[in-house]
Amino acid sequence: MTWQKYIEKYEGELLNSVIPFWEKNCVDKEFGGYFTSLDRDGSVYDTTKYMWMQWRIVYMFSEIYLAGYRKDEYVSIAEKGFDFLYKYGRDEAGRYYFALNRQGVPAMAPYSLFSDCFAAMGCAKLYKITGKELYAEAAASAMNNYLQRAKSGKSALQWDKSLSGKTPYYSLGQYMMMANLGLIMNDCLGSREFDSAMDTAVDMVLNKFYSPDFGLVFENMPVNSDKPDLDSSIGRQMNPGHVLEAMWFLLNHLEGKPGSGKEISAICQIIRNTFEFGWDKKHGGIFYFMDALGKPHLELQHDMKLWWVHNEAVLAALYGYSASKDPCFLEMFRKVDEWTWNHFPDPEYGEWYAYCNRAGEVTHSLKGGKWKTFFHVPRSLLFSAQKMRTFL
Amino acid sequence: MTWQKYIEKYEGELLNSVIPFWEKNCVDKEFGGYFTSLDRDGSVYDTTKYMWMQWRIVYMFSEIYLAGYRKDEYVSIAEKGFDFLYKYGRDEAGRYYFALNRQGVPAMAPYSLFSDCFAAMGCAKLYKITGKELYAEAAASAMNNYLQRAKSGKSALQWDKSLSGKTPYYSLGQYMMMANLGLIMNDCLGSREFDSAMDTAVDMVLNKFYSPDFGLVFENMPVNSDKPDLDSSIGRQMNPGHVLEAMWFLLNHLEGKPGSGKEISAICQIIRNTFEFGWDKKHGGIFYFMDALGKPHLELQHDMKLWWVHNEAVLAALYGYSASKDPCFLEMFRKVDEWTWNHFPDPEYGEWYAYCNRAGEVTHSLKGGKWKTFFHVPRSLLFSAQKMRTFL
Repeated sequence: MTWQKYIEKYEGELLNSVIPFWEKNCVDKEFGGYFTSLDRDGSVYDTTKYMWMQWRIVYMFSEIYLAGYRKDEYVSIAEKGFDFLYKYGRDEAGRYYFALNRQGVPAMAPYSLFSDCFAAMGCAKLYKITGKELYAEAAASAMNNYLQRAKSGKSALQWDKSLSGKTPYYSLGQYMMMANLGLIMNDCLGSREFDSAMDTAVDMVLNKFYSPDFGLVFENMPVNSDKPDLDSSIGRQMNPGHVLEAMWFLLNHLEGKPGSGKEISAICQIIRNTFEFGWDKKHGGIFYFMDALGKPHLELQHDMKLWWVHNEAVLAALYGYSASKDPCFLEMFRKVDEWTWNHFPDPEYGEWYAYCNRAGEVTHSLKGGKWKTFFHVPRSLLFSAQKMRTFL
Repeated sequence: MTWQKYIEKYEGELLNSVIPFWEKNCVDKEFGGYFTSLDRDGSVYDTTKYMWMQWRIVYMFSEIYLAGYRKDEYVSIAEKGFDFLYKYGRDEAGRYYFALNRQGVPAMAPYSLFSDCFAAMGCAKLYKITGKELYAEAAASAMNNYLQRAKSGKSALQWDKSLSGKTPYYSLGQYMMMANLGLIMNDCLGSREFDSAMDTAVDMVLNKFYSPDFGLVFENMPVNSDKPDLDSSIGRQMNPGHVLEAMWFLLNHLEGKPGSGKEISAICQIIRNTFEFGWDKKHGGIFYFMDALGKPHLELQHDMKLWWVHNEAVLAALYGYSASKDPCFLEMFRKVDEWTWNHFPDPEYGEWYAYCNRAGEVTHSLKGGKWKTFFHVPRSLLFSAQKMRTFL
């Protein structure tokens, strides 16, 4: 298959299957905001408004508009969502709640700093496509909240259950998001004030979370040690999809940066190793959670195959190829593209399934829920098509 | 197979496979307390001391001793565990932490009131087999803590994330534990002070959590309505294993109580309906989580087959038969006994596996962890054998 054919496949799925599904089903015309708990056919099975899921829709419709698919409806859907979320979404300290009920009454406390992060991403992109100052202000304020909360550490939050007997860890997710968010803020707000945060992220991922002994990036690294904590389940936890996602964020950040050859080469090697480590040799696909030493994983769903892991793996392969021109990434792309398209899309009702068991059988009919929204699938289809165009 | 043969099978597994596995591997001879994160062969893969898991070992070794298997080691293991947990396990308010590290330093906050509940169960049984006052005092104090926390509602806890936009629910687990715990406290401490709590539990399960429209017991029932909340995932959540466990607790409580015929008959019907609803017609076994209307379940692992669900289902079938003499419970017992024994026991290293996927393949090599300890398997084997003896 030629790159041109792949581009048509990815773009076609985005425009004819994924966007129409959400455009038609996600807007709550009565109360504002979005439905994300959508069953196979788009029907709503729960009306809770989870903040991560809500803001990602604002972000994604703006991103798609920005990419040149200029339907006025995309702007309108994003702006109406903003109105609802900005009006009802924050506590007195400006932190975004984890969830609202359908009417906008806070339903879950603002315990996750990633709510602020996704709000910042959504507002920034919306500003970029509209130029309205309110969105830029809302973006800067959410981003500053996120950075402040990230700096103060999880333990500052009242909901944190960790006590002194628990080994303190740095968490990969936090630094990974920082790289992605910094890039978006710089691009959309034209500011350089997040440059140091991004450099910190690159440094932490390559020099703290990466273990040369394993050739892999760990999910949790002890604050007080340079080695992974191999005596505990949390210390041994691996999340290949998370790592692959982080790696294309970093490549995206470093691509335009002079003198980044060494870092880029290290990242490409991490992608190769992670793909090799995370790929299921028996059934294909990439595992959700793993244990660095192959010991039992505490999560019941560790061996399942999740849509977003595969969306991010496709991007990691393409970014790896773009950065290195190493043909091994073409092979990787071909393999993960094939598994992904054989298992997740639903041609009958549109959009993609979220969850397969290890053998690749769909286990849930849902198209959206507490953790799946209009985000990983369209972002992967859009950015993949964009990246592939550079290969023509 | 005759009851005598079944008794030999259950008792043999308890004495020759399950108890020896824990006796040999769970005791932390260096720091006290227990290891529960045990891999297939009994090796330790994590040393965190989760309080639910710890106290259940104290309870279970005492229960087994009480049942007539009088090895001094069982008492000694239980008492040494008590020493460690009583010394290190509580905060200033007397609440048990969720977890300690190996050395006994608190690692996770006392956010779960069930920690107090399992402490009360462990201490009470230990008192029953030793007669030492300290254990009776520790039991009463943990039980009072539990009852007080249960009464004040979850929202009183600082770690609770629910806000006013979230529909308030009663949770089945709380009332179910009350029935079981009350029975143990009355039996072991000779007190009647928990009678009203037990009657409340029976009343709540039969008149609040039970929906006549469905013929089933729901996991979460709205505080402000007599009907299940069918518009939300949490309102539709079903947990057949939990219900089956609750039902034999209730039968156990009501068996000796005059004038309970109507309640007993209602409970037997709930067992029949739950078994029919929860049984996987394709692969056999009982699902972990379900949705009352068959809508998508939010939990990734909803269709897995868990050891404890099957341990409790065996007991529900036997208690149902004992209470009603309805032969349908014999058929139910035969079916769930067969599936259980075909999938969970590990004759090579002893003890049972915890987790199978929907098709019945083992997904984790662990024998114990954050949620599995020396509890459901031995309790089911022991109580089943005891109940079957009454059928001879």
